[in-house]
Amino acid sequence: MVYITRKEHFNAAHRLFRPEYSDEENLQVFGKCSNPQWHGHNYTLFVTVKGEVSKETGFVVDLKKLSKIINERVIDKVDHKNINLEVDFMTGKLASTENLAIGIWNELAPAVINLGAILHCVKLEETENNVAEYFGQ
Amino acid sequence: MVYITRKEHFNAAHRLFRPEYSDEENLQVFGKCSNPQWHGHNYTLFVTVKGEVSKETGFVVDLKKLSKIINERVIDKVDHKNINLEVDFMTGKLASTENLAIGIWNELAPAVINLGAILHCVKLEETENNVAEYFGQ
Amino acid sequence: MVYITRKEHFNAAHRLFRPEYSDEENLQVFGKCSNPQWHGHNYTLFVTVKGEVSKETGFVVDLKKLSKIINERVIDKVDHKNINLEVDFMTGKLASTENLAIGIWNELAPAVINLGAILHCVKLEETENNVAEYFGQ
Amino acid sequence: MVYITRKEHFNAAHRLFRPEYSDEENLQVFGKCSNPQWHGHNYTLFVTVKGEVSKETGFVVDLKKLSKIINERVIDKVDHKNINLEVDFMTGKLASTENLAIGIWNELAPAVINLGAILHCVKLEETENNVAEYFGQ
Amino acid sequence: MVYITRKEHFNAAHRLFRPEYSDEENLQVFGKCSNPQWHGHNYTLFVTVKGEVSKETGFVVDLKKLSKIINERVIDKVDHKNINLEVDFMTGKLASTENLAIGIWNELAPAVINLGAILHCVKLEETENNVAEYFGQ
Amino acid sequence: MVYITRKEHFNAAHRLFRPEYSDEENLQVFGKCSNPQWHGHNYTLFVTVKGEVSKETGFVVDLKKLSKIINERVIDKVDHKNINLEVDFMTGKLASTENLAIGIWNELAPAVINLGAILHCVKLEETENNVAEYFGQ
Repeated sequence: MVYITRKEHFNAAHRLFRPEYSDEENLQVFGKCSNPQWHGHNYTLFVTVKGEVSKETGFVVDLKKLSKIINERVIDKVDHKNINLEVDFMTGKLASTENLAIGIWNELAPAVINLGAILHCVKLEETENNVAEYFGQ
Repeated sequence: MVYITRKEHFNAAHRLFRPEYSDEENLQVFGKCSNPQWHGHNYTLFVTVKGEVSKETGFVVDLKKLSKIINERVIDKVDHKNINLEVDFMTGKLASTENLAIGIWNELAPAVINLGAILHCVKLEETENNVAEYFGQ
Repeated sequence: MVYITRKEHFNAAHRLFRPEYSDEENLQVFGKCSNPQWHGHNYTLFVTVKGEVSKETGFVVDLKKLSKIINERVIDKVDHKNINLEVDFMTGKLASTENLAIGIWNELAPAVINLGAILHCVKLEETENNVAEYFGQ
Repeated sequence: MVYITRKEHFNAAHRLFRPEYSDEENLQVFGKCSNPQWHGHNYTLFVTVKGEVSKETGFVVDLKKLSKIINERVIDKVDHKNINLEVDFMTGKLASTENLAIGIWNELAPAVINLGAILHCVKLEETENNVAEYFGQ
Repeated sequence: MVYITRKEHFNAAHRLFRPEYSDEENLQVFGKCSNPQWHGHNYTLFVTVKGEVSKETGFVVDLKKLSKIINERVIDKVDHKNINLEVDFMTGKLASTENLAIGIWNELAPAVINLGAILHCVKLEETENNVAEYFGQ
Repeated sequence: MVYITRKEHFNAAHRLFRPEYSDEENLQVFGKCSNPQWHGHNYTLFVTVKGEVSKETGFVVDLKKLSKIINERVIDKVDHKNINLEVDFMTGKLASTENLAIGIWNELAPAVINLGAILHCVKLEETENNVAEYFGQ
């Protein structure tokens, strides 16, 4: 069993807020991240999969195929987008790093199985100081 | 003459577009950066000043004072903000990295003189792949 | 269950030595790190906590509160300090990266519980080449 | 139990291919990495060991000794070498990051035991985007 | 006048040697880099151009066009290639970082003029410790 | 003319203070850096030299020789040392990043000439946020 990690990037806008809160309440709970006019980040995404090493290729997975899946199922949906308004798998959810990591996991897990590997971890850096990791449960 | 660089960070939303263009024209000229619902970045700002080393302190400038100026005149205005809509020194300008670097220069240059040093360079990283530098002319 | 990591920094002096050893013995066991006149590092601290994602906030923990705890209980005690002479939770211990990671764990674990999460890992980089991780047992 | 990681570097050439395949078949399976005239990488190697902290030294292992083992058993064999042609522990294996990580594990595991610690993980970065980790089984 | 830098990557094999030297002489002059079976690197390329900021776009150059030029004229020729054997603009030259930076400059300078800007600097990192910069003369 | 940069590291203790000041005055002028019990840093040193590219070797300078000079004349004197108390070329000077960069320049400039190149810049990072550059005048 070897673990393989692929790193990808996306740039997006978001806002942390609850619509039923006033701006003041949102500011108190979510701080500067609740700015009604949005802000954004360069997100860094690390997708780790695990599996047996193929005798034929020396690979756990073909990284080009893994990268293609990550791009089609995640990056194309979130890159240069507004996470609150434009990302289907985030509809109705708070746009926190935690929820985004879980949403990305759900997008990727079934597709990784089709590559013959198992999704192990979705790690998402919102900034270099703030990171979320989700292992599927 | 020694050159001193201070690194600071801010996270902001922006959009590259001309209001007189259609969305299609903006897409053609500005690509994904013209997304009408905004996107954003973790900007990294490097401010370089130059001056003589003080015999009294061993410093060109007191970095705490330089950092205070950068925060009051730039970071507080742009961090967790929408550059197009909320930043006074960007009003009426395209929110490109180039124009943002020039705008930051204009905010900082007079205040750096008051520290007894000269502003040498404003370097702004929009992403680790795209960087603008402005030297004041 | 999601894992959240917060990165913080501190700069400190230290020395690796046993007082009952001669300088020569300390040099043999601890190498350059035993220099009697001290040396120092830019330490990078990664604190990982785990917990359920709140439906109310989308957070495992409020990162501002986590950062406040790390700063009050660790950074304020070690930053710009001499680890051997000035840090209460290191009194009587060898100032190794290992012991410092364990000491930081003990400072943080009870306070993280009060945030409604569980401390998972203290990772401490002495240099980019030398890293210690402690998981509490 | 504390985990200690040591980071080392090597620069090497390699090629991904199966000798029984034609160049076209190799290109299809291995992409640009099958270039018959070789290509190369700056590999970054992270070796993590685990063990009890010594009361005498404050160390899990003496990092100078760990670094010496990594250099003698791995770096000296692979640095500025052709992995396919010149590395004894890779003879007859596909020169993938996965197989290289497993090969390095096998070189290091017995020697780490002699230091009084247990090898926990070999992490190998081929590029900053592609990483393999092996935990020994 | 604003300076814009675009960062790109390539992975390549090379060897430093003079064919008229013996292997021993090459080893003495070029060290490990003269290994006859090749070695390789993850090269990082920084291309800096300068020019006026367009009132129409806010850009010095369209970074997509600059990236396209760098990829067509440089990256496609060197990525996953053997610099000594397969790169047209390096034929007959020692494959040093210095000569590679000069060669890349000569590939890019005419094309950058067609973008309406001036090539200012080609910076090439062979490793994070060894860097060459060329300014065209 | 090509510019070559070599990166090196050292870890040292220091204190910013004037002996004729009280601790309170030192605290006011130098902040936390005036802690009487010292603190320290992982300094990163970038030495840039310039010169013609040799037709014989493809090099401006032999980087092994440049690294040897930097290590003998600088790193061996400052690494794991107390800059205020143990570094000959800093005697009687305030241990600021500025003065350290100038001191390192004076150590290196004559020796670089003997390599057939010219010292262009000494860049010293005290932390990733605070950097000094000296160009010799």
